[in-house]
Amino acid sequence: MRLTSEKRLDGGVLEREFTLGEIPGILWTPGSAAAPVPLILLGHPGGLAKMYPRLAARARHCAADGFAAATIELPGSGDRPRDPAAEQARADLRRALQAGEPVGAEIIDALILPLVEKSVPEWQAALDALLALPGIAGPVGYSGGVISIGVRLAVVEPRIVAAGLFAGSFVPAAIVEQARQVTIPLHVLLQWDDEGNDRQAALDLFDAFGSKEKSLHANMGGHIGVPAYAGEDAARFFARHLG
Amino acid sequence: MRLTSEKRLDGGVLEREFTLGEIPGILWTPGSAAAPVPLILLGHPGGLAKMYPRLAARARHCAADGFAAATIELPGSGDRPRDPAAEQARADLRRALQAGEPVGAEIIDALILPLVEKSVPEWQAALDALLALPGIAGPVGYSGGVISIGVRLAVVEPRIVAAGLFAGSFVPAAIVEQARQVTIPLHVLLQWDDEGNDRQAALDLFDAFGSKEKSLHANMGGHIGVPAYAGEDAARFFARHLG
Repeated sequence: MRLTSEKRLDGGVLEREFTLGEIPGILWTPGSAAAPVPLILLGHPGGLAKMYPRLAARARHCAADGFAAATIELPGSGDRPRDPAAEQARADLRRALQAGEPVGAEIIDALILPLVEKSVPEWQAALDALLALPGIAGPVGYSGGVISIGVRLAVVEPRIVAAGLFAGSFVPAAIVEQARQVTIPLHVLLQWDDEGNDRQAALDLFDAFGSKEKSLHANMGGHIGVPAYAGEDAARFFARHLG
Repeated sequence: MRLTSEKRLDGGVLEREFTLGEIPGILWTPGSAAAPVPLILLGHPGGLAKMYPRLAARARHCAADGFAAATIELPGSGDRPRDPAAEQARADLRRALQAGEPVGAEIIDALILPLVEKSVPEWQAALDALLALPGIAGPVGYSGGVISIGVRLAVVEPRIVAAGLFAGSFVPAAIVEQARQVTIPLHVLLQWDDEGNDRQAALDLFDAFGSKEKSLHANMGGHIGVPAYAGEDAARFFARHLG
């Protein structure tokens, strides 16, 4: 991991950009902390530059609660090389949505499964590097989307002890099946009228999770209309499990 | 309204029993308040004596947030006269559940609709009397079950400005239809594995509500297994809308 820049945000939060091999990422840490802090990995749909304002806002909330936050670019997004098969699946998805057609399982699988296969080891490598930095310890949480990445990480990465997942993307059947193996506490956000999401699939995924502690918080509004109080409930979830 | 007894609970909360005509009820008010306080009506499935420990615990939380809380016995419960038709419907429901049969709409209608028709005017009469007491003002919230009573109250009673509803009982189709007329902010608790509840019916009811602000909080566990943090989220909902 190479730290490439650093700056202080209003309120004292330290923002550092880094690269992990070819993968760009951002790390935010609280302005002052007496001891090493827990870490929350911030998931997103890809495209760090476009997502930056919302990621930074989420990171500031994490820092206010005494947590570090970090994210990395997804394979095939931002400046990272495109995968032709994934681009084809993305085009197929767009065409199906525009035509008002149901999105076939083969499109969802082609779009999401390779993304999960590639990105999960990258998040794990980032975790290795981030936890080696002074000032960052565990426990670790995963927060956000792509929900299939969060599910896989929750299954394979024992350092992640709690996940706040955003039910805002299509989920392959294989991931729903894998959700039965998840046992860590979960806090799942669902936008009830999310235009790019299948509500019933999100409910089925929630039902599938094996965790004894899992909460579904459904709110009104579209994909980016998560109300402020829903964010506060999610923050309290992480405070309970990482604090 | 006749106040029949009063005592101080640990922490200073004042608990007063009352009767409203033939209807027994309980009022809890914070130990000290500089100004008249908002009021939360505590819904329950009937049977004040049996429900008392849980009602008193909820009332203490309300008082800690600066709210009065009050409840009344439901028609046909506790020491109030039984209605033969409702008793028949209750027996039919029990038989269907024990036989593992689906509960027919005619059973649900026979059990719930007369209860709604009788109890809603009683809650409104209690509201008249409670708001006439010194130290209690508005706004008013409704919290708990029977969810069909909460739905009807939310439609017909303009003094109720927010409702935290417990999706823990069967809901007639007529009430789901009426839910479209509800416009106040709603916070709906659903126990995902509630043994005495139909999850899909609860999700359909949530979908039907006309409110622009509505949140569904689903948690694991059976009917009385609501986790403490879910209660805290509900308390914050009322603090936002009544505080």
